[in-house]
Amino acid sequence: MTERVSIEKKVLSENDQLASAIRADLAKRKIFAINLVSSPGSGKTSLIEKTIGALGKELKIAVVAGDVQTENDANRIIKAGGKLVRPIVTGGACHLDAKMVGKALEQIELDNVDLLIIENVGNLVCPASYDLGEAMKVVIMSTTEGDDKPLKYPAMYRRSSVAIINKIDLLGTSDFDLTAARGNASKINGDLKFFEMSTRSGTGLEAWYGWLRESVSNLKK
Amino acid sequence: MTERVSIEKKVLSENDQLASAIRADLAKRKIFAINLVSSPGSGKTSLIEKTIGALGKELKIAVVAGDVQTENDANRIIKAGGKLVRPIVTGGACHLDAKMVGKALEQIELDNVDLLIIENVGNLVCPASYDLGEAMKVVIMSTTEGDDKPLKYPAMYRRSSVAIINKIDLLGTSDFDLTAARGNASKINGDLKFFEMSTRSGTGLEAWYGWLRESVSNLKK
Repeated sequence: MTERVSIEKKVLSENDQLASAIRADLAKRKIFAINLVSSPGSGKTSLIEKTIGALGKELKIAVVAGDVQTENDANRIIKAGGKLVRPIVTGGACHLDAKMVGKALEQIELDNVDLLIIENVGNLVCPASYDLGEAMKVVIMSTTEGDDKPLKYPAMYRRSSVAIINKIDLLGTSDFDLTAARGNASKINGDLKFFEMSTRSGTGLEAWYGWLRESVSNLKK
Repeated sequence: MTERVSIEKKVLSENDQLASAIRADLAKRKIFAINLVSSPGSGKTSLIEKTIGALGKELKIAVVAGDVQTENDANRIIKAGGKLVRPIVTGGACHLDAKMVGKALEQIELDNVDLLIIENVGNLVCPASYDLGEAMKVVIMSTTEGDDKPLKYPAMYRRSSVAIINKIDLLGTSDFDLTAARGNASKINGDLKFFEMSTRSGTGLEAWYGWLRESVSNLKK
């Protein structure tokens, strides 16, 4: 098993080098890049659809959408008005890596892009280990999951800067406790910035848009 | 990368050998074993709680509950009346493997056990590749996820024998289309047996209990 571990380390270190190159290129271009991570079905694609609908005219947004199979998410995002969208089909891998993202970015015209959204594979384990060159990871949990998810998947919460709690319109239909969820996430990572929202009803989305605007604008200063 | 692939093959083949040994032992003991797989938050633990509550007096049920971190699920199951329960904390790994399950089973008194439920890590990718010696994989999707999940995670649906659609009490609160979900799952695996249920409201659980009773009883014939 040590042989396996050393090869995994080698793979991760190659990944980190590629991620650093992507990060340097994005910084040069002044593109704010986020890596969206969550369980399957927490609302990553819906959030991107809404964000493009609301900000697509004032910000130039590029999207890289990863899935194990199908280009369904990329197609949904294009239908929602996304113009610079590339799918990545990992073909079995449980996460995106910097090589896949680098290749996808080569196929997007990045001139004057303000915001890059990377939609990772729906998985709370593997994507935590792979730097994609993003400015930060944004983890989404939804109120239809257990509120102890941050404790069960601590690496993901530790490595994220922002935590979104989605589907707050469904609060009360399960035992999900919002205060407990925030408390559990903060226990793992005291620096997390929270957004509570429903991509379906629209509640809480303005705060998210405002934060994106501000993050993009801070980068241009 | 070929070096990495060959080591992964070796790991999987070692796993398959251990899984075969577990399967042989369970067959000798006439224990019906299922491997519950799903996204985080689809309701695996809730289903086990309900099953123990309903069948715990007529069937002797053992449970192995896996998580990346915490023994929360095992504790919930014990609280629900589970007597033969062992947690597995994978400490980072995105799936259970046969070695972990074998070790956990050594710590359970398996005499006269009728049913073994293995609760895998909440993850739709990695657990598909690891045989744990179970009779079959049971995949759970919930109506708060996207109905295209079977297309995005085909390996999991291909390797499962039963598909549960949970949280049907929440139908209508999202765009989830039950017919589409079943169609997508059947497209990947035409032999899937379906159960529609809500572990919260109780709808559909009787059919599940009936099927478990029957599966256990078939094994004793």
